[in-house]
Amino acid sequence: MPDDYIHQKHLEEIPWHHAVIRKGFWQEIQQRTDKTTLQIEYEQLRRTGRLDSLKCEWKEGDPKRPHFFWDSDIAKWIEAASYSLGAGRNQDLENQVDEIVDLIDGAQASDGYFNIYFTVVEPGKRFTNLKEQHELYCLGHLIEAAIAYREATGKRKLLDIVSKYSDLVCACFGTESGRIRGYDGHPEIELALVKLFRATGNRKYLELATFFIDERGADPSFFIQECERRGVPEADQKHRADAQGTFAYYQAHCPIRKQPTVVGHAVRAMYLYTGIADLISENSDTSLYEACSRFWDDLVRHKLYITGGIGQNPKGERFTYEYDLPNDTAYNETCASIGLFFFAHKMMKLNPSGSYGDVMERCLYNTILGGASLNGDLFFYANPLSSNPLAFLNRSEESKHITLGRQAWFDVACCPPNYARLVLSLNGYLYLKEKDNLYVNLYVNSTLETRLDDIDIRLTQESKYPWESKIHFNVSLSRPTDFALHLRIPSWSDGYEIRVNGEKVENVRIEDGFFALRRHWSDGDSIDLLLPMRVRKIMARPEVAHDCGRVALERGPVVYCFEEADNGKNLHDLTLGDGNIEEHFDRQLLGEIVTLTMKGTRRTLKSWPTEDLYREKEDMREQVVLTAIPFYSRHNRTLGEMLTWIKSQD
Amino acid sequence: MPDDYIHQKHLEEIPWHHAVIRKGFWQEIQQRTDKTTLQIEYEQLRRTGRLDSLKCEWKEGDPKRPHFFWDSDIAKWIEAASYSLGAGRNQDLENQVDEIVDLIDGAQASDGYFNIYFTVVEPGKRFTNLKEQHELYCLGHLIEAAIAYREATGKRKLLDIVSKYSDLVCACFGTESGRIRGYDGHPEIELALVKLFRATGNRKYLELATFFIDERGADPSFFIQECERRGVPEADQKHRADAQGTFAYYQAHCPIRKQPTVVGHAVRAMYLYTGIADLISENSDTSLYEACSRFWDDLVRHKLYITGGIGQNPKGERFTYEYDLPNDTAYNETCASIGLFFFAHKMMKLNPSGSYGDVMERCLYNTILGGASLNGDLFFYANPLSSNPLAFLNRSEESKHITLGRQAWFDVACCPPNYARLVLSLNGYLYLKEKDNLYVNLYVNSTLETRLDDIDIRLTQESKYPWESKIHFNVSLSRPTDFALHLRIPSWSDGYEIRVNGEKVENVRIEDGFFALRRHWSDGDSIDLLLPMRVRKIMARPEVAHDCGRVALERGPVVYCFEEADNGKNLHDLTLGDGNIEEHFDRQLLGEIVTLTMKGTRRTLKSWPTEDLYREKEDMREQVVLTAIPFYSRHNRTLGEMLTWIKSQD
Repeated sequence: MPDDYIHQKHLEEIPWHHAVIRKGFWQEIQQRTDKTTLQIEYEQLRRTGRLDSLKCEWKEGDPKRPHFFWDSDIAKWIEAASYSLGAGRNQDLENQVDEIVDLIDGAQASDGYFNIYFTVVEPGKRFTNLKEQHELYCLGHLIEAAIAYREATGKRKLLDIVSKYSDLVCACFGTESGRIRGYDGHPEIELALVKLFRATGNRKYLELATFFIDERGADPSFFIQECERRGVPEADQKHRADAQGTFAYYQAHCPIRKQPTVVGHAVRAMYLYTGIADLISENSDTSLYEACSRFWDDLVRHKLYITGGIGQNPKGERFTYEYDLPNDTAYNETCASIGLFFFAHKMMKLNPSGSYGDVMERCLYNTILGGASLNGDLFFYANPLSSNPLAFLNRSEESKHITLGRQAWFDVACCPPNYARLVLSLNGYLYLKEKDNLYVNLYVNSTLETRLDDIDIRLTQESKYPWESKIHFNVSLSRPTDFALHLRIPSWSDGYEIRVNGEKVENVRIEDGFFALRRHWSDGDSIDLLLPMRVRKIMARPEVAHDCGRVALERGPVVYCFEEADNGKNLHDLTLGDGNIEEHFDRQLLGEIVTLTMKGTRRTLKSWPTEDLYREKEDMREQVVLTAIPFYSRHNRTLGEMLTWIKSQD
Repeated sequence: MPDDYIHQKHLEEIPWHHAVIRKGFWQEIQQRTDKTTLQIEYEQLRRTGRLDSLKCEWKEGDPKRPHFFWDSDIAKWIEAASYSLGAGRNQDLENQVDEIVDLIDGAQASDGYFNIYFTVVEPGKRFTNLKEQHELYCLGHLIEAAIAYREATGKRKLLDIVSKYSDLVCACFGTESGRIRGYDGHPEIELALVKLFRATGNRKYLELATFFIDERGADPSFFIQECERRGVPEADQKHRADAQGTFAYYQAHCPIRKQPTVVGHAVRAMYLYTGIADLISENSDTSLYEACSRFWDDLVRHKLYITGGIGQNPKGERFTYEYDLPNDTAYNETCASIGLFFFAHKMMKLNPSGSYGDVMERCLYNTILGGASLNGDLFFYANPLSSNPLAFLNRSEESKHITLGRQAWFDVACCPPNYARLVLSLNGYLYLKEKDNLYVNLYVNSTLETRLDDIDIRLTQESKYPWESKIHFNVSLSRPTDFALHLRIPSWSDGYEIRVNGEKVENVRIEDGFFALRRHWSDGDSIDLLLPMRVRKIMARPEVAHDCGRVALERGPVVYCFEEADNGKNLHDLTLGDGNIEEHFDRQLLGEIVTLTMKGTRRTLKSWPTEDLYREKEDMREQVVLTAIPFYSRHNRTLGEMLTWIKSQD
């Protein structure tokens, strides 16, 4: 058993509505998400026919044929809207949600079933193609939406709808004779059922989640059996199987406890692991925890882009092999980084190690934050680490979500509402607690109100994070009390300093990435944390062939990139020099950001005759000044080139 | 009109059987091709059912269903076997060919038509799917085979068969009412018809070639019309169309004279341009010559790998855009380099510029020669410039011909017999002539017997090319005479020296890559040409992003590469130093080759904890000695990594 085996007490999440995000970096992002992103997404749901599909009036031959994943797009939007409503009532928005909930209510079958696709497009086929058609995945998102909406507004209509449907699923699935012994091709229901258990107290939801997780990958294959029942020819039953004929794409190639590595479709993997990790916090299952730890280690040691992107391969939106981290073809779906953020959060609950928080920050400030434009109106689905408009001319079909710049919408529209729900629920990921321990995981201007044991505590934090390194906390208490405040010290931090009421804390000892400040606290106590941010030139392991001879720049949690708008064309031809990197706080460019400038060289075309494609090597470098901007702010100006890993002088 | 407009007199090819390749580098290769490759290929033609298909006994439900390109595989093998027979009778081989010819004879329809696929698999559908089904392409290869076989053996049975079939094609195609106004999706018939015209003197074959070339890409699209006649639904008519909806894949997106660049399937492009260039040598068509020159310039300036490989993209085996030259996914079909070799040869006939010969050498000594193993028994279809066994685990379907190492055969078996026919007919590409001018294009140990004006001349050349730089010529003449001997001075040559009868020729002037030695020659005159070979570190234009910061090594016409067998794993982590490169003539390794060794560095993994995927940059290089081998000899030892463009100190 490893030393870091499950923490003796699992940490508790603190509900998102117990923390309020205050003025600063994230409030601005939440506000634009609220005002712009949510309304754009609503309009897209309407325009594309998703909202109308809830009326169940579609008939064969009509345009806007409902797709089997449409329900989930609507659900994620409801969930996002709910977090917004929780932060401040907005009657228009609430009306929009209520109207949708009424439509869902009207479309629910008398036995509880709800799925638009199987109601109007393939009626009578419910639960016959779990492998491909996202049926329980859609329910999972509806459950998450229902819980968020109840928490935000107190209205439980949607929760009743999904509970009734979940009861039906409980009755239809299981090992008992006459039930379906299977699971969904796209995980999500598992994590949702654990949430539903917590929201309702009904243990059978937890048992159903356990069933789905235990059954996954069992032999004989449920997917094959299901295909046989549908009469799918044998040659087609292995659809999406890998070269070895397994269903690794669905993380269903063998039982989860036996799976050695992170494989398959990245979003599916993350949602599955999130559900498993959250289940472990209820059942402390050792073998599942070992599996999750294996997946985690494989992921962060071998398959994680520096931007927090995961899922290297556009073909199948999936993981490939160790250290295969190509930059221009990196798929890195926004949803996959959101899923990793969830997974890390659940792992941290099982074992409060700062490394989980580090990964959450990496995902959050780079791929996730970059998933929407600075105006909140355009989106990325795939998030490669370099891009070149020319390459798009010859992009193969599999890479269709690697787009030339940000897009207004996608046919497969999972990412934009997923982005919105994550950003608007960020409050829920800042803190964790356990008895008399309060953990600060993310540094975001906010006020937390919670109870530690039986004491009411209010913790306020304020900083210019992620740009500045000073973070100030204020403690309000109903009465003085002992507790430990655990502050996460990010691995990028170049030293740190902690002061309590102005007095420096000596002999700071970091344990597992957290500094524990255990003392007798009084109302009005203040803490100052200094996390010096230095620009760091990062190299990847030598095994990562694609980054060889290159560096990426990080400052605090923010990864930088180079754009054509600042550095001209042919970014591949730039080499970063050895000199200092200057930091500039720029209030005009791309929101308020810290830009970086540095000396470098560029290979020139001088004296290269146009007819020569190749010639004998000679030195052709000129001095240039290079400018880097945060990766998340890329592609907000032009459709030009972008590069994250830049060549560097040895 | 450019200065280099069509040479006033077109050069003549010298038939392959007028030159004999003598002891040395190429004789060994021809011998192994003769003894091993031809017989392996015959066996594969038999094993796969290709030979039996000629009996026309296949019925629906039988195994080994004939494919519509099988005829062409057989034809290319007959052509290759013919060159072998021409160099020295071999009764067994001749019997094998005769037997096949008899089967073809038996399968020919009474009206002349011959195509196994349309005889047994889709009878009644002849000439209805030229777009996809290679019907005239197959005839083209049969014509080439028939001509070679007649030249080698004097037997004209196959020539009669293809002439009769060609007569039928002449009667079926054309602008006249009732005829098909179209062309084949895969060019080849065009170049074959020009050859058939020369072999028979029948001008109508030249006219048919002209018709096919003139019609190609005309509006309205023949391919669409043909689809409509077959009742192909509109949605499927654009099969293989590009993003703009054009048929660039087939070089049929607009009339050839209007095509600005090299596009589409690389082999199709090369066969088409070869046919056009050869037609120009008959009709001196100015606008076609301008088109060919455009294609040539675009190709060699923007789309040619240093190995002579072309066709960057595995998806569609086709050209992409300017300077897009990825190494690991380079498709570079062996057939495409053979096609480029043909195209360059035809262009040289129109204008004797050394640059065409340079490209022929680049193709020949690198991609083409590397198309078969050193034993002549295993083949490459695609020829990427770097390879890593790990990458094959995640290769997408489109890249299926990018194989992990050399293969015994391919389902699409164009390359192995194409390799054999090129190697065995190399004799025909060494020399060209025009009146009293004799051009030496390739330096290969050989004896040429030809006539210049009315003088019989015998020219012998001898060297250890491509390893050594001294080439010795002897002239035998029936009587003393004036003529010019044009010696190609390769662009890689680092100076040159020419001696006639031991006396140095001063004031050597190179014109268009050739040195013209015009004098009064006597029987027994000798010429010594010295082409100093220095190892050259080559860089690619800065626009070629994939080669940025890297060099490739060339020595003479041979491009080098680094293999895991000599340099260990993680070749991407090697950096070539500034120092000297040592040359070693190695008689044991990989045949007789010159290997190169040099100092360099390797990034080490020392002190890199296994759990860190990224860390702050530090210097971690150790000194190593690197070894390079000729690119063509790669993958004859292990399935390990290979790298052509290596990182280089700036």
